[in-house]
Amino acid sequence: MNRDDATPLYQQIARQWAQLIHNGTLARGEKLPSVRTLARQHGVAATTVVQALHWLEDARLIVARPRSGFFVASRPAAVPALREVVAPVRGPGRPREVSVDWLGQRILGNEPPAGLLSLSGGTPGLDLLDAERLRRAVARAVQRHRHLLCLYPSTTGQEEARRALARYATGLGCTLDPARIIITSGCMDGIALCLRAVTQPGDVVVLESPTHFSFLEMLQSLHLRALEVPTHPRHGLSLDALQLALDTQPVKAVLLVPTLSNPLGACMPQGERRRLVQMAERHGVAVIEDAVYNDLADSEEMRRSVKSWDANGQVMLCHSFSKTLAPGLRLGWVEAGRWSDAVRQLKTMQSGSQSAILELALADLITQPGHAAAMRQLRERAGARMQAAREVIAAHFPHGTRVGNPPGGLLLWLALPSGLEALRLHQACLQEGILVAPGTLFSAGGRFRNGLRVGLGGEWTPAHLDGLRRIGQIASRLMQQPQLQAA
Amino acid sequence: MNRDDATPLYQQIARQWAQLIHNGTLARGEKLPSVRTLARQHGVAATTVVQALHWLEDARLIVARPRSGFFVASRPAAVPALREVVAPVRGPGRPREVSVDWLGQRILGNEPPAGLLSLSGGTPGLDLLDAERLRRAVARAVQRHRHLLCLYPSTTGQEEARRALARYATGLGCTLDPARIIITSGCMDGIALCLRAVTQPGDVVVLESPTHFSFLEMLQSLHLRALEVPTHPRHGLSLDALQLALDTQPVKAVLLVPTLSNPLGACMPQGERRRLVQMAERHGVAVIEDAVYNDLADSEEMRRSVKSWDANGQVMLCHSFSKTLAPGLRLGWVEAGRWSDAVRQLKTMQSGSQSAILELALADLITQPGHAAAMRQLRERAGARMQAAREVIAAHFPHGTRVGNPPGGLLLWLALPSGLEALRLHQACLQEGILVAPGTLFSAGGRFRNGLRVGLGGEWTPAHLDGLRRIGQIASRLMQQPQLQAA
Repeated sequence: MNRDDATPLYQQIARQWAQLIHNGTLARGEKLPSVRTLARQHGVAATTVVQALHWLEDARLIVARPRSGFFVASRPAAVPALREVVAPVRGPGRPREVSVDWLGQRILGNEPPAGLLSLSGGTPGLDLLDAERLRRAVARAVQRHRHLLCLYPSTTGQEEARRALARYATGLGCTLDPARIIITSGCMDGIALCLRAVTQPGDVVVLESPTHFSFLEMLQSLHLRALEVPTHPRHGLSLDALQLALDTQPVKAVLLVPTLSNPLGACMPQGERRRLVQMAERHGVAVIEDAVYNDLADSEEMRRSVKSWDANGQVMLCHSFSKTLAPGLRLGWVEAGRWSDAVRQLKTMQSGSQSAILELALADLITQPGHAAAMRQLRERAGARMQAAREVIAAHFPHGTRVGNPPGGLLLWLALPSGLEALRLHQACLQEGILVAPGTLFSAGGRFRNGLRVGLGGEWTPAHLDGLRRIGQIASRLMQQPQLQAA
Repeated sequence: MNRDDATPLYQQIARQWAQLIHNGTLARGEKLPSVRTLARQHGVAATTVVQALHWLEDARLIVARPRSGFFVASRPAAVPALREVVAPVRGPGRPREVSVDWLGQRILGNEPPAGLLSLSGGTPGLDLLDAERLRRAVARAVQRHRHLLCLYPSTTGQEEARRALARYATGLGCTLDPARIIITSGCMDGIALCLRAVTQPGDVVVLESPTHFSFLEMLQSLHLRALEVPTHPRHGLSLDALQLALDTQPVKAVLLVPTLSNPLGACMPQGERRRLVQMAERHGVAVIEDAVYNDLADSEEMRRSVKSWDANGQVMLCHSFSKTLAPGLRLGWVEAGRWSDAVRQLKTMQSGSQSAILELALADLITQPGHAAAMRQLRERAGARMQAAREVIAAHFPHGTRVGNPPGGLLLWLALPSGLEALRLHQACLQEGILVAPGTLFSAGGRFRNGLRVGLGGEWTPAHLDGLRRIGQIASRLMQQPQLQAA
């Protein structure tokens, strides 16, 4: 067994057995070795084996039979697929002033209160990232470049870092000029700069529906109107609906997450991406592409960006390393196409620049030979976590629940059975100390009342799978209780 | 002699002699020891002594007499004082849409092109800061807190850093609750958040006149209207004019730099600061105080902030350490008074947070016992540089030039003789490879055509004093040439 330091031992053992079950090495119904045998076999304490067995049990891969031991479950739990979230495309509604009043922030917060079990975030935690590798890169950068702490850094970022990013962008299918890359303080900072560069207050911006709640908050704070366009849970933004929007509304920009959209986890097919660029060009509309999850997508095909189809600078590519490498570096970047000058000017005026030391540490990290392997490992681990979570959902959520099957990432979108309001479930879970995101957060128009976003980010423990099971149980309980009228 | 590593040796020697001249140890007209004697006395090479003597000569503190040696100048050069920049207060004009079209950025840029001698910036350079002290703090922080690189940091900043900032703020005369401090990515980032929290597009914001060109760019980018209020070169914003503005215009905020204003270097008296807070409260207007230069002011009295007079949260205090400690850390902070929640929400949505590692390094730096002494030394060195520059200006600029005498900082405001357009001087200097900031940058309304901002920031060399002398010579030359009509 290849042990690593970041994943708890019991999880490494559990995953090894999960793999043996998934690939058929262990047959359905077969008995597992005893705790004592397993402990000896893996050279670990019995308690570690027990933890591993509980993890497998939570994932419904094995069952315990009293006084007999553990057996491979007779068949894997069935996971009902997510249907289209919206009815067949009728086109978008009217643009609306966004008035979400920071609902997303108020419900999910920046930091969940201590003691709350969070199943709301999609960012990998300490157990999936490599703090020591990061430390070494930062220590090296400050040792070599201490004088940069005494200088205002370049607004667009250190040249060495921009070159490293251009090289990195080949993995997104892009050939970029380092001179046109602008390093930002995270992806949202980049998106805000792009929106400000291409809009005036009152302008209309197309969003996916459902969409990331922070996009709604951002449109509100920039006094922009949102046009929410139906989005398929697997294939992303409906281009037919978008075409209707472009034909009938004064749209200035389309802001979307083409790969592993938030919250759906949808991935737009490459043919559609190409068509999106053509439509945007024809209508003179900016495409603001948030590519923050691309590295988490299972296939190379899906990691290719919309920007890779962009010959004329119509796409503004926004990216960061917060979801894959180091949320704490606070670095992202933008290639803003035709609007590069405007973005650079806004950035220079407002926030100036990021720390050159951290930019150079980032350049070091993403050009290290081991970086691609680290990304592969991250995807594999996220995939195992996702699989375990989907199985718990299939087994413990009420009948009629449907769940997405995104090709990567750490976010799952659920459609609860009709009659079960996600906001009510959210509140009931909160009372039991569990945080999960109700679907209404992801629309300015109060849609997705039975949607639920489950986040598998952060440090993952047996308590989290248990928490997920408890959410299912609470949902089942609520299904049996008539909803009380609000006073 | 206390040698240090940051200042070139010849400067250390020159300053020592400058001090002996200033404090009268060396009498006017007295002969200095020979180069050979001085070299032996200081234990340095003769070329270093020659450099030091040239520095003193440039500063008009000594004169060379051919074949006799160097003598203390017979009297220090007289520096004509700056008169009030504007006529007696007639009150502000009308609010105007700002349309500066990034003139400031286009003229001054983020990084002056290589080969250009910059006399435009006011940020201390490598020779006034302590790169090694900064490196140690960052290295310690990443060694101790590497795990923070793997976590999204708190939006408002690390608690330890916020506590250190609250302690630091006592030096600004403020008693602040660390829980209400919000760490930002530099001071301008904080100011933008404050403006967005208290205004809507089209709202009116009062600025000092002249004002920092980045404030004008920011108002334009946020679609705000500017009301430029007359500002006294020594006492700052005219409160009588402000009162008229508040009585007649729908002002939402007053954005100002009360200590060492940019470009004037004015300091508002404490009594006026108190009155400003009262006026703002009465009219329900936010005061956005940029305190970025406070630590550079010569007296404790002038380092005290407007915020220190604020009992009811009417003042939004914005600060950073870019002008005193480390431009490359990219950290500032805000205490936003009554608008704390709004600023926090905007910040969470957009840029999230800064690197926790750098925040903790900052906390370390500003709580080190030696920090106050480092600030004192910085002020002394900046003062010596300022004095030398004012003497060169007095000696080499055309008759009728007036120059400010700010109590600290690294910016000097000049009023050129009437008939000499600063923009023309700027262009002529640029042709000779010198960058200096013309006064029109500091107004949205094309005022201050004969104003010139000289910046003594960056790494300071004999070439800079020489460049300043050349600016004066170019100005004298232009005075004798009739201005050509534009085609």
